[in-house]
Amino acid sequence: MFLEKLNWRYATKKMDPSKPVSEEAVAKIVEAVQMAPTSSGLQPYELLVVRNTEKRAAIRPVAWDQAQITDGSHLLVFAAWDNYSEARIDAVVDQMAEERGGMTDLLQGYYDRLKAMYLPRSDEENYAHAARQAYIGLGFALAAAAELGVDSTPMEGFDPEKVDEILGLKEKGLRSVLLLPLGTRDESGDWLVNLKKVRKPLSTFVTNID
Amino acid sequence: MFLEKLNWRYATKKMDPSKPVSEEAVAKIVEAVQMAPTSSGLQPYELLVVRNTEKRAAIRPVAWDQAQITDGSHLLVFAAWDNYSEARIDAVVDQMAEERGGMTDLLQGYYDRLKAMYLPRSDEENYAHAARQAYIGLGFALAAAAELGVDSTPMEGFDPEKVDEILGLKEKGLRSVLLLPLGTRDESGDWLVNLKKVRKPLSTFVTNID
Repeated sequence: MFLEKLNWRYATKKMDPSKPVSEEAVAKIVEAVQMAPTSSGLQPYELLVVRNTEKRAAIRPVAWDQAQITDGSHLLVFAAWDNYSEARIDAVVDQMAEERGGMTDLLQGYYDRLKAMYLPRSDEENYAHAARQAYIGLGFALAAAAELGVDSTPMEGFDPEKVDEILGLKEKGLRSVLLLPLGTRDESGDWLVNLKKVRKPLSTFVTNID
Repeated sequence: MFLEKLNWRYATKKMDPSKPVSEEAVAKIVEAVQMAPTSSGLQPYELLVVRNTEKRAAIRPVAWDQAQITDGSHLLVFAAWDNYSEARIDAVVDQMAEERGGMTDLLQGYYDRLKAMYLPRSDEENYAHAARQAYIGLGFALAAAAELGVDSTPMEGFDPEKVDEILGLKEKGLRSVLLLPLGTRDESGDWLVNLKKVRKPLSTFVTNID
């Protein structure tokens, strides 16, 4: 149960390199990201699963030298579309039409309106919107990892342009948004694991309007 | 299991007003949002739980008249900080120090550096960063709801300034980012419930770097 793991999960600070995450668990986490909802179903980001040791070693120094990147066994990289485009949206609509038994006026009309709204906007505005969707995917990845008892560390702190370069993302029209190393906590070396998880109380975090 | 509900959940288009979500389930979903991670643990957004019928009726027309807002029993509103401020960050640090047994140089230093980075930035840039964190919370809410068998519909399509006005958010330094009605699907009236869920195949969505 994901709901029973809310306190178990935490941003792991020290991972044990001798305890890799199973490929079976990684596949389930990846599937959760794939199934996460996105605005208008566009899925405007891609997921990179980096096992390669050299690539992770290259990313670590441009990510504040965070050791989980190399101590974990897998590094998930969420990379958002650098812009919306007619071709990218058409590919989504075509797949929907094919899998749902043909193009309809409703489907065509919905995405024509979407294109009319998105395509005139700046690439920066469209990228920002795409990047937000990646955060829903991150939420699903974190929930899936917790349910499976897999440790993870969500990271915004890295140089995105450098990571894009290391992974060849720019040529694919992608920009790195989030890193998520997966691994196994090393309890003896982790300063955070035994500290109380601090969250705002419901009395300040939540407002009920009854 | 959340992972077994990935296909069960969908953006519900028609909810049955006669089947409200139990308060017990809503409390669990709220707790999942409260426990969701955020950048540097700031939790830079708040959650509103709107049960009030008049308020929801006022929000519906400024949210493309989406019926789930009034047909559901609860409307979650994710509202991000309009800016980072010294007072807001200090409140987080003070709570951490209190719950973890006192202020330390490490804690103070970390958040001093964070303030030096955030406070000179524009309010728009800081708001955008805070808003992204709300999307992780949305992911946790969707995962929790799915696990509990509660239907929901994530919505970006609304006039945020109007929603802020209806809920008095501006005076609290908050800006509405996301709506999430909770309710129970009305299978007979929902055009989407029986359509195949369409997602990009792993072969295009995921890149393995081995």
